[in-house]
Amino acid sequence: MALIVQKYGGSSLESAERIRAVAERIVATKKAGNDVVVVCSAMGDTTDELLDLAAQVNPVPPAREMDMLLTAGERISNSLVAMAIESLGAEAYSFTGSQAGVLTTERHGNARIVDVTPGRIQEALDDGKICLVAGFQGVNKDTRDVTTLGRGGSDTTAVALAAALKADVCEIYSDVDGVYTADPRIVPDAQKLDKLSFEEMLELAASGSKILVLRSVEYARAFNVPMRVRSSYSNDTGTLIAGSMEDIPVEEAVLSGVATDKSEAKITIMGVKDTPGEAAKVFRALADAEINIDMVLQNISSLDDNTTDITFTCPRSDGARALEILKKMEIEGEWKNVRYDDQIGKVSLVGAGMKSHPGVTAEFSEALRDEDINIEMFTTSEIRITAVVREHDLDNATRALHDKFQLGGGEAAVVYAGTGR
Amino acid sequence: MALIVQKYGGSSLESAERIRAVAERIVATKKAGNDVVVVCSAMGDTTDELLDLAAQVNPVPPAREMDMLLTAGERISNSLVAMAIESLGAEAYSFTGSQAGVLTTERHGNARIVDVTPGRIQEALDDGKICLVAGFQGVNKDTRDVTTLGRGGSDTTAVALAAALKADVCEIYSDVDGVYTADPRIVPDAQKLDKLSFEEMLELAASGSKILVLRSVEYARAFNVPMRVRSSYSNDTGTLIAGSMEDIPVEEAVLSGVATDKSEAKITIMGVKDTPGEAAKVFRALADAEINIDMVLQNISSLDDNTTDITFTCPRSDGARALEILKKMEIEGEWKNVRYDDQIGKVSLVGAGMKSHPGVTAEFSEALRDEDINIEMFTTSEIRITAVVREHDLDNATRALHDKFQLGGGEAAVVYAGTGR
Repeated sequence: MALIVQKYGGSSLESAERIRAVAERIVATKKAGNDVVVVCSAMGDTTDELLDLAAQVNPVPPAREMDMLLTAGERISNSLVAMAIESLGAEAYSFTGSQAGVLTTERHGNARIVDVTPGRIQEALDDGKICLVAGFQGVNKDTRDVTTLGRGGSDTTAVALAAALKADVCEIYSDVDGVYTADPRIVPDAQKLDKLSFEEMLELAASGSKILVLRSVEYARAFNVPMRVRSSYSNDTGTLIAGSMEDIPVEEAVLSGVATDKSEAKITIMGVKDTPGEAAKVFRALADAEINIDMVLQNISSLDDNTTDITFTCPRSDGARALEILKKMEIEGEWKNVRYDDQIGKVSLVGAGMKSHPGVTAEFSEALRDEDINIEMFTTSEIRITAVVREHDLDNATRALHDKFQLGGGEAAVVYAGTGR
Repeated sequence: MALIVQKYGGSSLESAERIRAVAERIVATKKAGNDVVVVCSAMGDTTDELLDLAAQVNPVPPAREMDMLLTAGERISNSLVAMAIESLGAEAYSFTGSQAGVLTTERHGNARIVDVTPGRIQEALDDGKICLVAGFQGVNKDTRDVTTLGRGGSDTTAVALAAALKADVCEIYSDVDGVYTADPRIVPDAQKLDKLSFEEMLELAASGSKILVLRSVEYARAFNVPMRVRSSYSNDTGTLIAGSMEDIPVEEAVLSGVATDKSEAKITIMGVKDTPGEAAKVFRALADAEINIDMVLQNISSLDDNTTDITFTCPRSDGARALEILKKMEIEGEWKNVRYDDQIGKVSLVGAGMKSHPGVTAEFSEALRDEDINIEMFTTSEIRITAVVREHDLDNATRALHDKFQLGGGEAAVVYAGTGR
């Protein structure tokens, strides 16, 4: 008998009808002989509606109260799913994050899970019950206040519970039936992947893939919880995310997919003095403002005046704040200028075992050159190659790379070490 | 500095605008130098909407899950009110019933409060915060499950907190500005009462007055918590409910008001054998089915066949069930018939110190006779006289009694002992 944790997102739960369909799937899983724990997000637009109500009574609502308010959404969906399960003849209990033992930091609106002590869940499972656990929430041990977990909170709740209960798998359900070699809306012949290592999924998520949140994959990797990405609208077994990159023999390299990201902006600081510490001041100021910097590019200093340019990318939603901070530093730093550009797109090729394959980097650049697409920034790592291009070139770039590396149809591209391919 | 507990019902909280208005009132109370604890019901129609959703996923939803679901409503309203208070510059925290230490029996959907340990509330009050507490809910100590308190649950929460915190008063806010000598919609010259003893309020509530739920008044009387009935739409100080009937000097009697009740039905069992135990069987069967019997009338037995008729009233909502039970017993009991009549109305005159005033009973009957209204059932107690009449006669009966005892305009009627008035 296996222990399966399933997570259903808001759109899988957006009506009474969808809730009943989800309940049927859960009961079928139980009837197949498994213990089942289910994490549900709030129904459909509930969270947005609650945020809207809050804004009407206070434009800057206190974070503690926002958490009290928003957690009502998951309470509603999980108890309704439990009721639907009971109407099908199985037994189910719903629990809040607090009741399930999800302990977090104090940080309202963006709490981190510090421990999960799911005693009550285990008891209920031993008692033959299906357990529903409200996602996106926990409780802080010291203040005993309810907290919410921020973006991807429900996925993270599911993985954390799976880890604490030593589940066999954590299935994440949405309206997509797996992880694809590229966004099928951009690349028509994108393929569904059967399996992916944790590291590849991490890179895909970090590179723009919206299927899973980085945070939940990081947690799964840390605790070695196999994940499965599945659709709540079909019986397709989806994509399994498990195991490590090291499991792939070193002579082979397998390219998994191409990820695209339109959510970033590029900022260039021109004429930074090329002396130790100048760049650090910039990054410290941005870090203190909690602006996440992604790619960084620093050119060689100009021989004329010993200055250099620093370019970095960050989320567009942080762009205005970052610009404000840098504009304040511009005069003291005696910079030439600070430029902001949010018309960029990021395209990444992700694969396992690309370490020793300079050929891949060459083919990447050639694919884009053949499409007349200019590469503005370029970074590589063991399992990812990323380029920043003009936003309007992004879809073409994605298709070009997907074709170049033969990720469509048939088998995924295989590159051999030493052949320079 | 006083400690004031306030309770706001769903219609006082039905929109963001009403929530802001309520928040202003709360902050004004705090600014006047008081400590303030507020209990809020769910906003407007929230509870009904949740019940509707539940019915869509399970026509017979499990009680534990229903409690998890419904308590989301109070969570939402209390956190929104806390946010609104903070937007006005005061500090507020919202708490669930569980966090506020409201401990209850296990009975989902109709739990009783067994204890209130409001340590966290007291801490927050000492810290200068206004405390919002979700009404209608608590937690069971053994199962650690959330429970709801049934009808009047929010009023009861407020009174229970007031008792545990030794508050100076518990103010119940609705859209009515106090307790009247009669329903102003039936009796145009009904007067607002300044003060009422606990017992009189109990009798009024038991007799049909919808202002306060019997349960909350019983709790207030048991713990001697003064209550105030006020409107959330005006600054009127409303009606104070405090003190005991015994506080009124015995030479005087004060009649407080006339209550009306259209919610009951009358059942007559004809031809019950007039032997010990026969009536008891009937009442035991009804009690086991949890049917609340109100008035009972048993005639003298017929000399011909030693049988008697038993008539009782019960809520119309229980009528069909009661009839079903009695019909099953009819054959074995060899009764002549069981008759059901839901076209009745109940009118009650409530007052303190009516003990020694048979004159009042006489005047009561005369008032109805003068209107050509037949009294079908009649009961009296120390502070209440109740008559059952035809439902269509109820409004006239109410006005007739209100006039007879001069409850309109000027001062409330005063009746003196020994004068036979």
